[in-house]
Amino acid sequence: MPNRAAVLPEPNTIEIREVPDPTPLPHQAVVRIEAVGVCGSDTAYCTVGRIGDWVVDGPLILGHEAAGQVIEIGSAVTGVVVGDRVAIEPGTPCRDCRECLAGRYHLCPDLVFLATPPHDGALVEKLAVDSRNLYRLPDSMSYEQGALVEPLSVGIWGCRRVGLEPGDDVLVTGAGPVGLLAAAAARALGATTVTVTDLSDFRLDLAARMGFVTERSDAAGDSTYDVLLECSGAPGVLAAGLARLRPAGRAAVIGLSKEQSIPLPLSQLNVNEISISLVNRYRNTWPLGISLIASGRVDVDPLITHHFPLAETRDALLLGRTVTDSIKAVIHPQQ
Amino acid sequence: MPNRAAVLPEPNTIEIREVPDPTPLPHQAVVRIEAVGVCGSDTAYCTVGRIGDWVVDGPLILGHEAAGQVIEIGSAVTGVVVGDRVAIEPGTPCRDCRECLAGRYHLCPDLVFLATPPHDGALVEKLAVDSRNLYRLPDSMSYEQGALVEPLSVGIWGCRRVGLEPGDDVLVTGAGPVGLLAAAAARALGATTVTVTDLSDFRLDLAARMGFVTERSDAAGDSTYDVLLECSGAPGVLAAGLARLRPAGRAAVIGLSKEQSIPLPLSQLNVNEISISLVNRYRNTWPLGISLIASGRVDVDPLITHHFPLAETRDALLLGRTVTDSIKAVIHPQQ
Amino acid sequence: MPNRAAVLPEPNTIEIREVPDPTPLPHQAVVRIEAVGVCGSDTAYCTVGRIGDWVVDGPLILGHEAAGQVIEIGSAVTGVVVGDRVAIEPGTPCRDCRECLAGRYHLCPDLVFLATPPHDGALVEKLAVDSRNLYRLPDSMSYEQGALVEPLSVGIWGCRRVGLEPGDDVLVTGAGPVGLLAAAAARALGATTVTVTDLSDFRLDLAARMGFVTERSDAAGDSTYDVLLECSGAPGVLAAGLARLRPAGRAAVIGLSKEQSIPLPLSQLNVNEISISLVNRYRNTWPLGISLIASGRVDVDPLITHHFPLAETRDALLLGRTVTDSIKAVIHPQQ
Amino acid sequence: MPNRAAVLPEPNTIEIREVPDPTPLPHQAVVRIEAVGVCGSDTAYCTVGRIGDWVVDGPLILGHEAAGQVIEIGSAVTGVVVGDRVAIEPGTPCRDCRECLAGRYHLCPDLVFLATPPHDGALVEKLAVDSRNLYRLPDSMSYEQGALVEPLSVGIWGCRRVGLEPGDDVLVTGAGPVGLLAAAAARALGATTVTVTDLSDFRLDLAARMGFVTERSDAAGDSTYDVLLECSGAPGVLAAGLARLRPAGRAAVIGLSKEQSIPLPLSQLNVNEISISLVNRYRNTWPLGISLIASGRVDVDPLITHHFPLAETRDALLLGRTVTDSIKAVIHPQQ
Repeated sequence: MPNRAAVLPEPNTIEIREVPDPTPLPHQAVVRIEAVGVCGSDTAYCTVGRIGDWVVDGPLILGHEAAGQVIEIGSAVTGVVVGDRVAIEPGTPCRDCRECLAGRYHLCPDLVFLATPPHDGALVEKLAVDSRNLYRLPDSMSYEQGALVEPLSVGIWGCRRVGLEPGDDVLVTGAGPVGLLAAAAARALGATTVTVTDLSDFRLDLAARMGFVTERSDAAGDSTYDVLLECSGAPGVLAAGLARLRPAGRAAVIGLSKEQSIPLPLSQLNVNEISISLVNRYRNTWPLGISLIASGRVDVDPLITHHFPLAETRDALLLGRTVTDSIKAVIHPQQ
Repeated sequence: MPNRAAVLPEPNTIEIREVPDPTPLPHQAVVRIEAVGVCGSDTAYCTVGRIGDWVVDGPLILGHEAAGQVIEIGSAVTGVVVGDRVAIEPGTPCRDCRECLAGRYHLCPDLVFLATPPHDGALVEKLAVDSRNLYRLPDSMSYEQGALVEPLSVGIWGCRRVGLEPGDDVLVTGAGPVGLLAAAAARALGATTVTVTDLSDFRLDLAARMGFVTERSDAAGDSTYDVLLECSGAPGVLAAGLARLRPAGRAAVIGLSKEQSIPLPLSQLNVNEISISLVNRYRNTWPLGISLIASGRVDVDPLITHHFPLAETRDALLLGRTVTDSIKAVIHPQQ
Repeated sequence: MPNRAAVLPEPNTIEIREVPDPTPLPHQAVVRIEAVGVCGSDTAYCTVGRIGDWVVDGPLILGHEAAGQVIEIGSAVTGVVVGDRVAIEPGTPCRDCRECLAGRYHLCPDLVFLATPPHDGALVEKLAVDSRNLYRLPDSMSYEQGALVEPLSVGIWGCRRVGLEPGDDVLVTGAGPVGLLAAAAARALGATTVTVTDLSDFRLDLAARMGFVTERSDAAGDSTYDVLLECSGAPGVLAAGLARLRPAGRAAVIGLSKEQSIPLPLSQLNVNEISISLVNRYRNTWPLGISLIASGRVDVDPLITHHFPLAETRDALLLGRTVTDSIKAVIHPQQ
Repeated sequence: MPNRAAVLPEPNTIEIREVPDPTPLPHQAVVRIEAVGVCGSDTAYCTVGRIGDWVVDGPLILGHEAAGQVIEIGSAVTGVVVGDRVAIEPGTPCRDCRECLAGRYHLCPDLVFLATPPHDGALVEKLAVDSRNLYRLPDSMSYEQGALVEPLSVGIWGCRRVGLEPGDDVLVTGAGPVGLLAAAAARALGATTVTVTDLSDFRLDLAARMGFVTERSDAAGDSTYDVLLECSGAPGVLAAGLARLRPAGRAAVIGLSKEQSIPLPLSQLNVNEISISLVNRYRNTWPLGISLIASGRVDVDPLITHHFPLAETRDALLLGRTVTDSIKAVIHPQQ
């Protein structure tokens, strides 16, 4: 049986190639991939060929927001069976190091992560993956929704990292997919109010339709907040958001800047004893993410603005640069 | 202007009497009470005349789940204005003791609490109360919903006390008003699953309609949970619930037993390092409670099964003993 | 080379037998055991043949508080070298299950623990053990001190479980080895005051010499505390200690009772919102325990009241029943 | 009776003036001040006339690290009696605002703090102060030691803010008084190892004598740490320290820079999910600070390198600029 993949052989080029049929190791399952969300990191690898120290130096298959159906299982698999519809957690930890044993597998130095060089991703028809990374989807959930558990996980974990407490008033700066899902997570985890800022009217409209308070980033808002979830990565937005935190306010830096260094006015922030938490992906979020979507507590559908077959992967990857009014593209490898 | 109140002059008797018109102290506001929920403690004071060390030893006005409209404010009030529709937090702390300064005003030894002897409660047409205990209701919220912020607060605080974390699987034992609202709070604060147990089919049906997994208390269920919210107060239910907790499981004891002493199998529970947190009302919950109801994240309406005018306060207080298929009675002092 | 062990072939009998020379697996090291502390659990297995569900049903080598010198290492060992003087953490987790990956390896259901049936312990001349359970001792520390890192770990972990915060006033009930080391841990982790209770004048004198406030358990003390570390396992002591906690007080149950069920006055404890944490051994405590002893922050020497050669293991195990004024016996397998 | 004070009438000038004898308000006590430690902020007000937004715009009495003896009490005082030897907590909160009621009185916007313009400080013979800010010293403690509870409190609170956990390996950058006391606090609260860096050999020698691991700030050390306590305020030290934190490492910024803005390499720090907590003084630290010093767990004596009578206050304030090998000056107002 053929197994087609969208391969990045060199910057800005995507080729549909045949790759070997996957054979599962004992703990692995083979998943027929049905939906893959496009993330800004996919676009960056495609166009720039690197993100920080991760450099693409050979043909790479992109895609790490994925869901599909189990079509084969390895000899030691117990958690899933053939036929299960599943969402895929893209990082596989070593399960043996200091970080893994400390309950922080997402910081495992040997984490194997889909579509992070040199590891291939999920833009392929059939993928072998550790079965412990698979989480069953209820019948009511679509594969597209299943794929979006990954970016929702970023929002959930940002809320965990910031120590979101029920009753917090939350400011989310940046209304891209991650910002909107972080806002949705904050609300679903007990925020009293959630305010979203951005410069794009399209995105602010979407945020308003999702039920959030909205504010233009360039407006001189003066409300104050308990929590800041910075999701824009834009210069200056972090410092401006920190200035709006109340005493004992807490911030999570989710959106990463391209700048090497971010200047922060620490000697002013100390008056309010602000805390700043950096965020690196997530851990243990899939069951909750699936539950939030399946129960309607988080509605990811408004974010999925565009769909593409595998052959149009390059268009999907470049969507954000070509279509202003877009949020999230989903690629369907079986189409 | 007359000011009618429902007074408990002796056990099992409620009389409608005229009481003095309230004059607000500088920090107080006068609220025209529009809705008062009946709590099991009201019923207990009415029928038994005591709850533990709190003994009714003179005429007492009951009622502490209340909402209404501000009709007058004291000279130092800044947070509310005449005309505001508000929910009332019933406990007023001293704001000066060790507990208040430690951020635990609800444990203030001098807390003045509505309808806890010797302090009168809210079953009156007009009530003077510290304005800092008043929380504005959005126009979309009814007074009945405003009154139910109080029992919802019990559920919210139970979740806080138990250290509910997003992603927890939660077991709620007891599907009375407090159990159902604790279940609703757990879901709104990020539980992955919420299972409710009871012996009453009526209550289990209601729980199922509210979207919870249900299980009869006398069924030998074998699912396990991260968190137990014990809301039944029934003998044996706590120990049985504790036995179903996973390693590192946590329990909050919300429903209080009439027994002096509860036997707990500690030497078995230590294998799993279970934690047990006792719960005494709540603190800092009103803004969140109002937000959860106003946004639809918690729906309290199915719980309000019966309504009464002030003159029928006694019927309202005894409803739970006369009508099996009831959950929460609301009294309307202006009717 | 011979390898002598103290074997429990049947209740109340200890025989010195030759056992096979250990061959280390790739991750194991062989340790020449120099000191083994006697724990109440060793005595219980020896005399009663069981602790709860753990039943001795064949010849068993006791001893789990151990230190010695590395004399051989397996092919994959990197953390220690031959000649290292080490303390041994007695529990080896699977490193693969839910608990291990959650940072709670001590609750691993497949934990292999020295001297817990059916696993042999450390009362042997040479023992093969996972090298990741070995922690190097500074030259200044004796093997006896190294062995006592284990019971000190119980105290450290009890403090962690109870959420000991710098500044807490701590009550420790029970001045046996675990109680005294829990008290020492509490002081070393920032307690403002530490009070120890017991019925034995010998133990109270020792507690006083170690610098703790002391009080007879049967005196009607009325000081109050933030934290209770219950280390006696005696009936009624837990409930009495809980009654002396301040609002928001926290208790850890470290000493386990032989009773199936302990009656607790929950409806009184809820007024103060008491929290109760059960404790099962410890995790991640060896580096700190070694540091506390080596730096003098914890002095374990006064606890070591008796020494025995391997041949007198039975006397050591029964010491607590024959000599009133004893605290901790140490067995020296090489003597 | 005369009451002499050291007054700062204009920058760089200190005059000994008579000020009115204090009359205590009901909650106040009058303390005969016996020892006042000099803090860098005193020196800054004296020489520069400002710290950030706090500007000296009239004659000011400096000094906020103080201890003395109670010589008179107001009518409502219950906690202390005349004759008590006490340490003084210099900040008096309003006890009524959101921060006070949230358990964060140190962030009270109306905090009255000794020697922070426009409030006078403790460099006076007799001072009236809220009696709830007074903490009794055991007989074994000197007034000098009592005065140093204040800078020790900065260290204790820095450890609290950073979430210091027993077992952490701690890096303290900057071996001035605050750095050394933060290091001492970290050790007394359960750090496994404490490493102190500085550029001054004098200070590193002192740190070594106090039992800490030492390292020159300009050496390229490569050990890693769980916790960073930045106490130098020097440019670049924070970023360098952050880079040495392990995954999930935590930093507290205690030393404040004169720079408006500090550049931080956030996109590198996110890989390890570093957390950064800003620090503003302390709260609830006096009982613990006194206990740590009285019990010998923290030895402050080596820090007190110089003593001055009140008349030589200016020399004391400028000591750090004139004598390289100095750490902490103490002024004795009664001399």
